[in-house]
Amino acid sequence: MDYLQDLFEFLKIDTTSAKGKGEEGAKFLVDYMRDHGIQAELIKHKAKNPYVYGEINVKADKTLLIYNHYDVQPVEPLDKWQTDPFNPTVKDGKIFARGAGDDKGTLMARLQAIIDIIKEGKLKVNIKFLYEGEEEIGSPNMEDFLKDYSERLKADYVLWEGSGRAPNNAPQIVLGVKGLLYVELRKRTAKDLHSMYAPIAKNPTWDLVYLLRSLRTEDGKVLIPHFYDKVKWLTEEEKKYLNVDKKYLEDAISQQIKEDNAMIKLVSEPTCNINGIYAGYTGEGSKTVIPSYAFVKLDFRLVPDQDPDEILKHLEEYVSPYDVELIVHGKVKPYRTSINSEIAQALIKSAKTVYSQDPVVLPNSPGTGPMEMIARYLKLNQIADGVGVDYYGSNIHSFNENIFVEDYYKGIQWMKELLKVI
Amino acid sequence: MDYLQDLFEFLKIDTTSAKGKGEEGAKFLVDYMRDHGIQAELIKHKAKNPYVYGEINVKADKTLLIYNHYDVQPVEPLDKWQTDPFNPTVKDGKIFARGAGDDKGTLMARLQAIIDIIKEGKLKVNIKFLYEGEEEIGSPNMEDFLKDYSERLKADYVLWEGSGRAPNNAPQIVLGVKGLLYVELRKRTAKDLHSMYAPIAKNPTWDLVYLLRSLRTEDGKVLIPHFYDKVKWLTEEEKKYLNVDKKYLEDAISQQIKEDNAMIKLVSEPTCNINGIYAGYTGEGSKTVIPSYAFVKLDFRLVPDQDPDEILKHLEEYVSPYDVELIVHGKVKPYRTSINSEIAQALIKSAKTVYSQDPVVLPNSPGTGPMEMIARYLKLNQIADGVGVDYYGSNIHSFNENIFVEDYYKGIQWMKELLKVI
Repeated sequence: MDYLQDLFEFLKIDTTSAKGKGEEGAKFLVDYMRDHGIQAELIKHKAKNPYVYGEINVKADKTLLIYNHYDVQPVEPLDKWQTDPFNPTVKDGKIFARGAGDDKGTLMARLQAIIDIIKEGKLKVNIKFLYEGEEEIGSPNMEDFLKDYSERLKADYVLWEGSGRAPNNAPQIVLGVKGLLYVELRKRTAKDLHSMYAPIAKNPTWDLVYLLRSLRTEDGKVLIPHFYDKVKWLTEEEKKYLNVDKKYLEDAISQQIKEDNAMIKLVSEPTCNINGIYAGYTGEGSKTVIPSYAFVKLDFRLVPDQDPDEILKHLEEYVSPYDVELIVHGKVKPYRTSINSEIAQALIKSAKTVYSQDPVVLPNSPGTGPMEMIARYLKLNQIADGVGVDYYGSNIHSFNENIFVEDYYKGIQWMKELLKVI
Repeated sequence: MDYLQDLFEFLKIDTTSAKGKGEEGAKFLVDYMRDHGIQAELIKHKAKNPYVYGEINVKADKTLLIYNHYDVQPVEPLDKWQTDPFNPTVKDGKIFARGAGDDKGTLMARLQAIIDIIKEGKLKVNIKFLYEGEEEIGSPNMEDFLKDYSERLKADYVLWEGSGRAPNNAPQIVLGVKGLLYVELRKRTAKDLHSMYAPIAKNPTWDLVYLLRSLRTEDGKVLIPHFYDKVKWLTEEEKKYLNVDKKYLEDAISQQIKEDNAMIKLVSEPTCNINGIYAGYTGEGSKTVIPSYAFVKLDFRLVPDQDPDEILKHLEEYVSPYDVELIVHGKVKPYRTSINSEIAQALIKSAKTVYSQDPVVLPNSPGTGPMEMIARYLKLNQIADGVGVDYYGSNIHSFNENIFVEDYYKGIQWMKELLKVI
């Protein structure tokens, strides 16, 4: 097995799910796993790109399910790439290729580590592999798949798609995700009016402004009653691993941050954000009009154990005096694995060994994902992310996607170390 | 002189200034005035459509300047007209034609009344006529014209373009206009961000919401310090002529109105209105983003003696802590002629005689116009509107523009009566 050579063969295959490609990559994986003694198959189910399912049963007490995806984002705009995205190129110690960081690199590093461990006869946990081919188009068939295959996927731990380096370059472990409630509030009157009627006519835009203003304080506290009732605030143990200088976050957002504990805020606080707002005349110059229609798009990022359905109820109650139309665009439950769980502790321990430094451990990602759904269907409570090969400059979903060659080997090592301590 | 026949000849001429038409109408007027013994000429100055200027000097002490415009709005969409807009048609007691209400009908009714009075030898005030051909494209050359021709236009009173019936069908007199300050407030950050950064990133949209919320109470009171300092509130005499049932205003705006004194509110209150607001994602469905750019377009309608420059200063001071960009799109000063002035009293008295009912007298229009500019350049303080032939169903600027035949004759009578009592 040539680690990089085999990775490059995989990276060369165009698996852009948004363009209907992927099956060739799935077949490559099945062949690769079988060639190395791992039982593997394609499962079509309802997905256009088949799932790759694999198993190694060493009759251990515990089973680890490894999730990755073999599909990639479209490469456009192609002219911004300095190399051919499907011809992996090593330059300045980095591998440039679509999928290097998200998620083919991590998939292969983990798989190659396991192949090595099998050869050495040292595997002491059963492993199941689930490789999806539709992650980059939103996993539209995943829930149906989980419903029908929950028995087969049964495991004690899930290792999610991968997390390599934190912004401060420490290894990064992620133990959950935030939830989401995405709504649109709309307010209308009968017709647009000349703004001379302002002394006597209602303007739905003002109504929205007053409603919005009452939803949130200027420092971000959400004012909907019971919004924070179910929030599980971070423990001191959880905060210990969030010691990241705010300068890294300032770089990421190109803004200055007042608070020193920015990383803790980022992962622990639920939010109410305005994604978009619109009313009336928005062209050049001026038009005097009282708009008849105004809307605002809001997302609430939720933390464990806030429930989007409960928050929606609180919100509906809160906005009812404002007589607005409320449309729900999305709901995702938050999820968090305990930092004291076996998988979290094994990830922390193995990361310390391989990288000789404390990892950054996010009790949950500031972003959202379907972890709660996985936990629910597979009836388990240990899902974590880590053992990845990407870093904060990997340009995933963008052009010139890349990882460090060194980080690829570190990823292999981390996987091996994890399998020793879990 | 055949009142209607002559009016129709004038209405048949396409004088759509937005399409470069008008000169034919101007020539028609000069000929018509000369034919009836009024000294008249075309003045080109800087305008594309010439001004028509006329004079009757009866060596009286006082001079009345009559302003009208001979140009009209485009007729499109033509398929919505039930008749040919340039072929005046009488139907159900109404005259349908482009310009019937705005402003050719009023122009001709006044002119024909004056011609009659001249014939009768009863004119006891000097009259100057100023007919513009660019009103419907915003009078872009009017200020320059006033500057250069202020001596020639010198007068004691100005009768503005026309006001026929109030919403309750009483004759309507308008003694001024509101002023305007139109601004845009913009707020930016370096770049759009994934909304997962909401706990630590600034969202300029929220900043605008807080700023807007602090500008105005929910019942419309503007909260900028010193905003109301210069407001001249209405006198009891002025309120007396604003006794219009709110149902007419409710019909006009298709909204219910809480206050019984809606007409008083409409003309007397200065306002802060949101004409448009924009930030972030405004398409279908959802996108999770912290917008990097938000703006709002605001108009402040001002009443005498608020000064748009002073209000702008107060506003700039008020928004300075919010660190927004402020762009000024327009400034117009308010204007109000005293209800106790000779022209106001003459209009009220003549209206009562002709219509046998109290007129509605707006101390100022709820809308905006260049009256203050006229007063300033001509150095006079009596400008009023009235003696018009339109009503609230005249569909000016729209399709099926019309006036009542009866109101045309009433307009002629009103003009004659005004000339008796002024």
